[in-house]
Amino acid sequence: MKIIGEKINGTLPSVRKAIENKDCGFIKQLARLQSEAGADWLDVNAGTSPEKELDDLIWLINCIQEEVDTPLAIDSANPEPLAAALNTVKVTPIINSISLENHKLEGILPIAIKTGCGVIALAMDENGIPKNLDDRMKVIHELLSITKKNGIPDNKVFIDPLIMAASTNTDNGKIVLDTIRITHEVFPKVHFCGGLSNISFGLPFRPLVNQAFLSLAINAGLDCAILDPLNRELRATILSVELILGRDKHCQRYTRACKKGLIGKKSE
Amino acid sequence: MKIIGEKINGTLPSVRKAIENKDCGFIKQLARLQSEAGADWLDVNAGTSPEKELDDLIWLINCIQEEVDTPLAIDSANPEPLAAALNTVKVTPIINSISLENHKLEGILPIAIKTGCGVIALAMDENGIPKNLDDRMKVIHELLSITKKNGIPDNKVFIDPLIMAASTNTDNGKIVLDTIRITHEVFPKVHFCGGLSNISFGLPFRPLVNQAFLSLAINAGLDCAILDPLNRELRATILSVELILGRDKHCQRYTRACKKGLIGKKSE
Repeated sequence: MKIIGEKINGTLPSVRKAIENKDCGFIKQLARLQSEAGADWLDVNAGTSPEKELDDLIWLINCIQEEVDTPLAIDSANPEPLAAALNTVKVTPIINSISLENHKLEGILPIAIKTGCGVIALAMDENGIPKNLDDRMKVIHELLSITKKNGIPDNKVFIDPLIMAASTNTDNGKIVLDTIRITHEVFPKVHFCGGLSNISFGLPFRPLVNQAFLSLAINAGLDCAILDPLNRELRATILSVELILGRDKHCQRYTRACKKGLIGKKSE
Repeated sequence: MKIIGEKINGTLPSVRKAIENKDCGFIKQLARLQSEAGADWLDVNAGTSPEKELDDLIWLINCIQEEVDTPLAIDSANPEPLAAALNTVKVTPIINSISLENHKLEGILPIAIKTGCGVIALAMDENGIPKNLDDRMKVIHELLSITKKNGIPDNKVFIDPLIMAASTNTDNGKIVLDTIRITHEVFPKVHFCGGLSNISFGLPFRPLVNQAFLSLAINAGLDCAILDPLNRELRATILSVELILGRDKHCQRYTRACKKGLIGKKSE
């Protein structure tokens, strides 16, 4: 199970403030803490207005790269800042993201093809997020047919099944779990990723809903998630599920994480 | 998802002490708290020496029944105290338990047949707990053929797949999850139950392993568990998984439990 650290995102007030103030120390700290906690990639989203995005994204990437070598997930819907970011990164990143939306197919897909980076592919098209399982699977089939045709192998694609709030539709959890399970059966080399905490949007006491959903999603085939790597309970949940599913020989990864203080009760 | 409250068990030091001191108030409190927290049955295990078990079990049952009407799960391996207990209970209980062990088939099964109570059936035989999935499924097939032959319908049987520590064998989690899933597919009317916390025996920081395992087990088909109903995290996990799997229309049970203060942050 891989983790994309979600914390360097300009839509979060503290990060937006750091971008405005060019507070590189704050960004470096987020980069270091997430990397130390085991993030495999760091998502970087400037979240600022189109005319500022290019400069802000490059500034963020430079700050991060002064501090850590962790690969990045470049999170932008705009070709120009994305292309500039790809010229700035030192380690091969992931592109976040393509979809079946026209502007993504025209603007982002060509960059993914040219650079050969891994790419996150959202299971949506011009009509938005398909409401049921069949339509979502149709979008995924079409996405993977397009990436394949363009020379991007399945193992470079991270399907984001688009996790939606259970509070707005009771079927949303099941639709995503089934989407992951079926995609995993049909395209065994394809990876997944997703924004987990969307599932509990609108509900009180969200953490345990997120943990339970993470458990079920890993069981269904989820092998990567965009989350807060500093969240000790989510980390413990990932290690627990891998242990329960027999993927952690002699429970070594789990017990090592306990000894390192990465999960379990905080010592301070 | 049903819960069998596990707390009235004479192998626990506080309960043993209450039995020795005939401290009926302590037992009543355990009965009331578990019932208020949503236990569907209360397990009653005297846990004392054979010559004392009958008296202690009857005393426990009388204490409980003075306080609550919650049905009981009579937990005894000995026919005489079990039969006496069944004559004492006011509400139809569950018998805990039969198995393919000779002394259970000879001593307990006839009582289950005669009384028509629900019965927990452990997936084990004279050779102990089968080490792999195939052997465990063979035992379950044989158990369910015996209960059926003796007029006990599938929906009165609670298969306990026997959850074992992942720390002693990395495959133990997967074996139990597969046992539940396959049994549920082959015998859709059969119920399940099990002692969840066994999965994390020997590991540090057990609660999140137990929560993750509970999530996966419910997803596999577990519809009843022996656990501590006062554990807010396990309760929240059950409600979360049912919500995620689309079994909680408009998230009503989840939000009601939050409002009642049964899950979420404690108000005191």
